[in-house]
Formats: sequence, C-alpha cells, structure tokens
Amino acid sequence: MKTRGCCASICQCFFEYSTPKILVIRSFKVGTLNRITQALVIAYVIGYVCVLNKGYQDTDAVLSSVTTKVKGIALTNTSDLGLRIWDVADYVIPPQEENSFFVLTNLLITLNQTQSHCPEVPKTGFDCTSDRDCKAGSRDTRGNGVQTGKCVKYSAVDKTCEVLAWCPLELDKEPPKRNILPYVNKTYLEQCVFNRITDPDCPIFRLKDMVTEANEDFQTMAVHGGVMGVQIRWECDLDMPSSWCVPRYTFRRLDNKDPVNNVAPGYNFRFAKYYKNGNNEETRTLIKGFGIRFDVMVFGQAGKFNIVPTLLNVGAGLALLGLVTVVCDWIVLTCMTKKNIYNEEKYSYVDDFQLVSNSFSNLRMTCSILLIVPVQPFWPKFIILDYSPVFSIPL
Amino acid sequence: MKTRGCCASICQCFFEYSTPKILVIRSFKVGTLNRITQALVIAYVIGYVCVLNKGYQDTDAVLSSVTTKVKGIALTNTSDLGLRIWDVADYVIPPQEENSFFVLTNLLITLNQTQSHCPEVPKTGFDCTSDRDCKAGSRDTRGNGVQTGKCVKYSAVDKTCEVLAWCPLELDKEPPKRNILPYVNKTYLEQCVFNRITDPDCPIFRLKDMVTEANEDFQTMAVHGGVMGVQIRWECDLDMPSSWCVPRYTFRRLDNKDPVNNVAPGYNFRFAKYYKNGNNEETRTLIKGFGIRFDVMVFGQAGKFNIVPTLLNVGAGLALLGLVTVVCDWIVLTCMTKKNIYNEEKYSYVDDFQLVSNSFSNLRMTCSILLIVPVQPFWPKFIILDYSPVFSIPL
Amino acid sequence: MKTRGCCASICQCFFEYSTPKILVIRSFKVGTLNRITQALVIAYVIGYVCVLNKGYQDTDAVLSSVTTKVKGIALTNTSDLGLRIWDVADYVIPPQEENSFFVLTNLLITLNQTQSHCPEVPKTGFDCTSDRDCKAGSRDTRGNGVQTGKCVKYSAVDKTCEVLAWCPLELDKEPPKRNILPYVNKTYLEQCVFNRITDPDCPIFRLKDMVTEANEDFQTMAVHGGVMGVQIRWECDLDMPSSWCVPRYTFRRLDNKDPVNNVAPGYNFRFAKYYKNGNNEETRTLIKGFGIRFDVMVFGQAGKFNIVPTLLNVGAGLALLGLVTVVCDWIVLTCMTKKNIYNEEKYSYVDDFQLVSNSFSNLRMTCSILLIVPVQPFWPKFIILDYSPVFSIPL
Repeated sequence: MKTRGCCASICQCFFEYSTPKILVIRSFKVGTLNRITQALVIAYVIGYVCVLNKGYQDTDAVLSSVTTKVKGIALTNTSDLGLRIWDVADYVIPPQEENSFFVLTNLLITLNQTQSHCPEVPKTGFDCTSDRDCKAGSRDTRGNGVQTGKCVKYSAVDKTCEVLAWCPLELDKEPPKRNILPYVNKTYLEQCVFNRITDPDCPIFRLKDMVTEANEDFQTMAVHGGVMGVQIRWECDLDMPSSWCVPRYTFRRLDNKDPVNNVAPGYNFRFAKYYKNGNNEETRTLIKGFGIRFDVMVFGQAGKFNIVPTLLNVGAGLALLGLVTVVCDWIVLTCMTKKNIYNEEKYSYVDDFQLVSNSFSNLRMTCSILLIVPVQPFWPKFIILDYSPVFSIPL
Repeated sequence: MKTRGCCASICQCFFEYSTPKILVIRSFKVGTLNRITQALVIAYVIGYVCVLNKGYQDTDAVLSSVTTKVKGIALTNTSDLGLRIWDVADYVIPPQEENSFFVLTNLLITLNQTQSHCPEVPKTGFDCTSDRDCKAGSRDTRGNGVQTGKCVKYSAVDKTCEVLAWCPLELDKEPPKRNILPYVNKTYLEQCVFNRITDPDCPIFRLKDMVTEANEDFQTMAVHGGVMGVQIRWECDLDMPSSWCVPRYTFRRLDNKDPVNNVAPGYNFRFAKYYKNGNNEETRTLIKGFGIRFDVMVFGQAGKFNIVPTLLNVGAGLALLGLVTVVCDWIVLTCMTKKNIYNEEKYSYVDDFQLVSNSFSNLRMTCSILLIVPVQPFWPKFIILDYSPVFSIPL
Repeated sequence: MKTRGCCASICQCFFEYSTPKILVIRSFKVGTLNRITQALVIAYVIGYVCVLNKGYQDTDAVLSSVTTKVKGIALTNTSDLGLRIWDVADYVIPPQEENSFFVLTNLLITLNQTQSHCPEVPKTGFDCTSDRDCKAGSRDTRGNGVQTGKCVKYSAVDKTCEVLAWCPLELDKEPPKRNILPYVNKTYLEQCVFNRITDPDCPIFRLKDMVTEANEDFQTMAVHGGVMGVQIRWECDLDMPSSWCVPRYTFRRLDNKDPVNNVAPGYNFRFAKYYKNGNNEETRTLIKGFGIRFDVMVFGQAGKFNIVPTLLNVGAGLALLGLVTVVCDWIVLTCMTKKNIYNEEKYSYVDDFQLVSNSFSNLRMTCSILLIVPVQPFWPKFIILDYSPVFSIPL
C-alpha cells in the first residue's frame, strides 16, 4: 500500500502542471505603465545588451605576431665621424626583434676604446687631491671602471681617481642636436602610404607621420629618443563577413616626457662594436644611442554567436521583467484609488498566530464586511479563497 | 497611535511570508510537456553550461615566459664565401630573444663595404645620361646612399647617379636556392624528440618537423624565409589534479605566402659585421639574411570553482524556467480543449474603467453565462472572484 | 466585425496589467525564515558580488610597454682574459630588448677561432681508431662541424674524427665559479632604491634584491644562469581617483631549478664577436654566456562601472530570490503543523482526466472533507474552485 502510494504520488506529480493564478487589472493607467516599463526592459535586453553590446556573443582575445621592416638612408656630418652614411643595418639595433623595432636618431660616440687606465670623469665622489682619496678596488655604480687607488690629473685644473676601464672614457653630456633621420620610409615596395583619410588600410607608414599623429614633433623627440606605441586594434564580429574584419591603427607616445618626474627621460642605450687592431689587441667603439623605439601592440577581440551568453543575458533579462511587476504592484497597491479592491483581490491571508491582535484583524474585517454584503451565514464556504481567518471566525 | 501603527506595520510585514497561489492542472499532455521542457532547461543549465562549459568556474589567462635553445651545424659552399661552417652563434640572430628565435636559412652577402662613392644600382629614377639628371644631396628611400650630383658609368651599357654609401652596393636580387640548414635540432641533451603520437610532451622539436606539421615545405620556405608560430596552449582545470595540466603544441605558418597581395613576402632583414682594416679604416660585411622566425605564442586559461559565476548561471537558469511556464501557459490556454475552464481558474479580472464598452463586456459575459449556469440576476455577487466591476453594479 | 474584434483584443491586451495572486502567511517561524533567507541572498548579491567582487564593473586587461636600463661595472681576472672590466655594453646582450633584459654573469670564452680543420672534442660517436670510423660529410647535431673523414690525434691518448669548424673548438665544461656582477644597480640617476616596506613605488631595483625576494641566491644563480620574472601587477578601479592606481612588484624565478627533470638547467646562449686579422682573414671570439634574463611581465586589469554587468548580476540575484520561495514553500507545505490549510489556500486543482482513478481522488477527498466541514453530500458543487471536472458533474 505504501509503495503503491509512493508510485502514485510520483505519477501524480509528473502529470501535473503548476501555473500561478493571475489577477488581471484592466486599467488605462496601470496597463500603459506596465507595457511601457516592459517595453523599456525588453528594449534594454534586446537592443542594448544583445544588439549594441553583442551580448549574444562569446569573445576571445587576439593572439598575434608582428613583422616589421624599415627602409631609408640618413646622412650625418660630424667632427668625430666626418661625413657618414647610415643605412638600415647601421641604425636598426638589434637588426630584428619581435613586435618592436628601434631606430637610432642621435648618438654620442667614443672611438677606439681599449681596456686600460685613465682618470675618471670629474663627478662628486671621483674628485681627489691625493692617493688617499682614492680606494683601490672601489667600484662606484655611477662610474666607468674599477679604481686603482691612484689620484691622477684629469685636466689642467682637475684631478680624479684613476680607473681600469675602457679608455678613453665616454663624456656623457647632452646629446647634440642632429638631423640623422629626416625621412625614413617603411617598406616602400608598394606605392601606398598610410593616410587616415585616403589610405587607412595601407600598412606602410612614414615614421614622421606616426609621431605627428601622436601629437609629437619628430625632431624634438629624436634628440633624446622616446618610445612610440603603434596600436593595432582588431575588433571582429565572426558572424559577419570576414572582409569586415580590418585593423585600426593609432599611435601614441608611451614614454613620459616630463623631465622632472621621470627617472630616465627619452630612450637610449649603450652598445659597442668590437675590433682587433694590428697588435691583435681588442678595441671597441662605444656608442650611446638615442632613438625611438616603436612598440607594435596588437590587441582586440573577436566575437561569435554562442548559446551560453545569449541565454545568460535572456535569463537575466527575464528576471528583470520581474522587477516591472514589483514596481507596478507598488503603484497599483499604494497610489491608485481602487487600491483596496486590488489588495483584496490579490492577497489572501492565513494566520499562523494563536492570538491575533484586534488592531490587525480590524483592519481586515472592515474590508470584508464592505465587500460581502449581503452575506449569507454560509459565506465562508463561498469566499473560501478570499481572505479570512478561517479558523478564528467560527461558522 | 501613528508610531504604534508604523511599528506594527513593520512587524506585520516582517513576519509575513508571501507565496503565489497556484493552479495545478493535472493532465497527461500538459504535464508531460511541462516536465519535458523543464528537463530540457535543467539539462541545458547543469549539463551544458555547468559541466561541459564549466560555467561554475572563474577563469584567468595564462602569463608566460619562454626560453629556447637551438643546436645544429650547417655547411655551405658558395663562390663568395667558399666552404663555410655555420653554427648557432652564426645563424641565430640576435643570439637571444624572449619568446622568439630566428634561424638564418639563406643569405645575400656583400663583403668588404666601406663608406665611399660608387654608382647606384640601375633602377627607375637612378638611371642618367648626364650630371643634370642627378641631384646632389637627394636621398631616395629606395636607394642605397646620398647622391653626389654626378652621373657615372655603372657598367658597359648603363650610367647611374653616383652616391655616397657603403660601397660596393648590395645587388638585391633573388636569393640563391641554398641548402643551409637541412637538419637542425633543438636542445639535443635529452634523447626524446617531439612526436604527436609517440612523444607529445617532449619539448624538443626538429625545425623541419614543426614546418611539416604546418603543412609547409622547409626547403621552399627556407629560400625566402617566413614566420612560424609555435602555439603552446595551456587549458587547465585547477579543480583537477595538476598532473592533468599539460601544454598542447600546434604549429602554423604566420606570414602570408601569397606573393601578389603581400607587401613583403617571406622574412628577411639586413645586418652587418664591422671590422677595421690595417689602415684603421672601418669596413663591414653586409648580410641580407633570409630565415625562419619562430614565434613562441603561449596562450590559454585556467579555471577554478567560484561561487559567483556558479550562482550567476544558476540564477539565469532559474529565470529560463520561467519561460517554460510562458510556453506551457500559451499551449494550455490556447490549444487545449478545456482552455476556457483553465482561463477561468487562472485569471481573475478587475476593471478600472468607468465606462466599459459593450463590445468588451460582451466577450466576457458570454463566457460567464456558459460557465455559471444556472445564473441568478445577482450573479455578480456570486462570481465575485471572476471578474466584476464590483463597485459599479449596485447590489 | 473580425478586424474590430482583433483591434479590440489588442487594445484590451495593452491596457491589462497581470499580477500573480498572493497567499500571505502570517507566521513567526515562516516569516522569520523567509526574511532571513531573503536577507542572505540580498547580502550575497549586493555585498559579495557587487561590492567585494565589483560585479557592477566591466573590466579590460592592461596593455603595456616596458623600458629598462641597467647600470654598473664588473671586474674579472681570469687566465684566458686577464684583468678585464665589463660595463653595460659588454654584459647586456642584446643591448636592447622589449620587456626583457639579459645580464651576463658567467662565461666560457674561446678566443681566436677561424674556420679550419681540427679534431672533434672526445665524445661518444666522435672517438675513432682509424679513418674508417669517420664518415666524410657527416654532421652530428651534438658536434661542432662537418666531418672530413679523417681520424686524427686529439691528445696524447685520444684520437677523434677531424671536422671543418670554427677552430679551436669550445671545451664545453662546467662554467667556472666567477663573481662577475656582485653589485649592479638599475638607473641610479634617482637616489631611491626599491624597498618593499620603505620605498614600494621606487622603480629602481638592485638585481641582487630582486633575486633575494624570489628566495634565491644571486651567486648560486649566477653560475649557471636563470630566468627571473619581474611581475608588475596593475589592479585599477577607474571609478576611484587615479592616484589609487599604482603597480605592485613581485619577483619569482621562472626557470626550473631541478637538474634532474630539466632539459637545459640554467640559462645560457652562445654569441660571437667577429674580427678580421692582418691577412683579412675572419676570426671570431666565441662566448658561451651564462646569465640571468629578467622578463618584465606586466598584467592586470581595470574596472569601471557599466550598466550591463550590473543588471546581469541584479537579474541573476532576483532569480535566486525565487529559490527562497521554493525553499520556504517546501518548509511551509511539508513541515508546518498547518500545512494542509496552506496547501488548500495555495493550490487549486483542475483535472484534465476523463476518468479519475479512485486512489487519486481519495487522497484529495480526505483532505477536502477535513477542511470544508460541514460538508454536504453535494459538496462537489460547493467546492467548485477546488478540483472538479466542472462539466462532468451536472448541477
């Protein structure tokens, strides 16, 4: 009997469909408010979330690899180097990198350095009057070498501690204002050049144009160097034709121009070219190179329809429609003239309290009398689904 | 009295539990439809979203660093260089990079360049008949140097503008078909070699195998160079043992092979080696190196259980169950034979209209007559829970 | 008439507001349980999801570019090189990279290599007794060159196959324990140095401090090299003042220290410096450099208020409140003493079955008898809104 009752309950439960009972209020004001609010929520979910924000799509970030090529010639005429041509192999250092390329725009050159002894450059901590001021083996991180312990003449007036270093030392002063690279083109094989209005898809850029688009002046930037970001943005909708998926280029200066609040303004690094002279002795040319490093930064995402985010947004939107009911209920049951009737129709009360205070029941009983007149002695049976403290009022 | 009423209301509100009134329709058809649809939604939320899509997990992208090492020897025998050995220090340029390594596979070499004057390579714009055709100081971006203004003999038949450049100039022609690197292994210290079937976790790859897996031919690719992507994908479930978390390797060619729609087919760059000859004059060897750049791209994500996405998906799923009610309601109230009874049971109507047009009320009155037979003239009182403009019809 | 009925239906539908009918159970136990559960859900949605997890924000990943500079001097005194100074141009290889810099800490140097013939280094596969053991043209990937086919003396006791290679060959042995870089500072222009407690925002780091923070010993790591990650984390709330958005630095060793389960312990690579001797013959110095590569890894995300994720989380939270009703319903209709009354008040039944089996109807009849006392023999009529096949029982 028990098992039969259990199976029966399960079957009974399976073939049941529960639907909430609805009170339909037909009213111009409430109906209009309700429909407008529902329309707003639906417009938000479909229009804004799904269509504009593409909430029906799953997204993935772009994964990229960049190859760059630089072309162009520069000419300098300086006292240390004389008239000199610079081509790509000379000014792109290192010759190839991933996602980045450096273009030398200025330099401080120190020729024919060999490992030997020479006086340090005059600076705080390196000036001396006798050998006692110099400590052998001392290695100042601002210095150029290891001190030998001797104090030697630097110039007619200065005496500094002698060091073992690559001599002659580099004189680290302000880089000269040169005009090394006034006109460098990138991969000129094609005749197009990137122009935001006329040729936005041409992947060939003038370095000067890139710097100008970032609201900078190439000549000013070239003196101390800097870092330029070439931002390539891919925003693709994979539900659309693939020809719609094109990159957008923007340029911006990445290093901090402010010389005050900046550890190392501009962009420079030192490198050397090594040689052996006739005596098989190693010499090197030290170059402090200032230049513009162009970092190619590719970012973006692609979206494609996916059932999971779609139903997630639809579900959340449906739940928001529930808020509409809350808002409209509040208006109907608080602000409308017939709110008492609506309250009656909507709510049924069952008390679980043993004692019901008079103030509570009075509130409700008053309403019941108004509505049920004339009421027969058997009215509890007939309005059993309205409200009534069924047990507390005896038949 | 007011405060007492206010506190009383709040208490009354606190101890109330509101639950919607439910109409339970016991029907084979509707019940089965209802349960099946609910089962579908629950199967979707639990099975697809949570279990398959791991919707209960929060994810984070992988952050990686890659070190690579290349090993192997190559031998070339050419007219310009003679018999020559190439080892790692010769063909990996630059010697170390992050996330990438370049292997030289072909080259055009120009030996013993010095800064001097020589005739430009014959090309459109450089050909001339007299000095008037050459403009001193002109710097064509396709050229090799700065024009001096003279028109000189290039060969027996050609005359071109003289330039200050690294002479002799490079003759930029098609790279020869060499066989520089037939067999280069990566880090041979271990004896394993990556094989997708037998050794999928061995991090030692034959360059040739990587290129073959990308459906490319190494020898063809080696002539003009190219860019290969080594994609290392990490998909980890941090709720599972960490030994399950292994990388998956795939290889693909990244550069565009199509020579027509391509700015610069293949992959090459120029670099130089600098020397000083017996006269302390700087000479250099210019090398236009063609090769394959291997970009190691690590991507992927790890997921771990998190309460927030779990409850987000559960919440959205619950809201979707609301759709089931909408669908079943529509079927029940439109298609079923007893739809009128269900309509009566489910809906109660309250009008807010002062005047109710005859056409509206006729629609409903007809139904009420059918249902409530026999109906007394005072029927509004007795069917108080169906629809009635309670106040507008006097008792 | 039809169109008028159709328009009328649409208007009628537009001005309707449907609200579910509610059964309010006033009970201390159920009310309190209900309010507590609702408060928990609301506290979870607002407190945890929105405030703590910032669920109201849309996020985007950081896109960064890094510039680094290294400063400092090292001194070595070895048999092969003698007393030698190393500055930045000597030990940072390559001189500039994006997001990474390598500092040479140890080396194996092979001077004055030229392309010539010499015996291979004794190793399995290279040892021989006569020319028959050496195959001309053979190129072992562990070797240094291409075999000539001759078997020559390597030392007093060993004979190995002759190769065409850069001779003399490198003797790849354990790197010596040197102390090349005991004290290297980064960009010393400012006087601050990063300290996690006193100076957490100073972007100037001692290499030794970085290694120590990663629980490693610089001297031990310097012998074989390694890879250090400098993790810069940006977590920014764009709804807050921008001054709150500062980077957090952490350091960790990225390479695997375990020498057993590791293809290539430490970090090293080979590079060469090329020279031309008096006879215009190319020589080179081969350097196997061991060092620490510092990878600067920038990651993080910024969040800003956005209506879409906010409403998504609110919607899902509202749906979760529906669970509260499910739980409380179950308690009320199963565990409470007055569950039968609540069942009656909440549920109305309509059967779609032609024949109702006795077992089913008995279950319900029992309940109805209990509730509707006194009940007359014609009770089906009077409990018309409970369950009854209205049409099948004639009045």
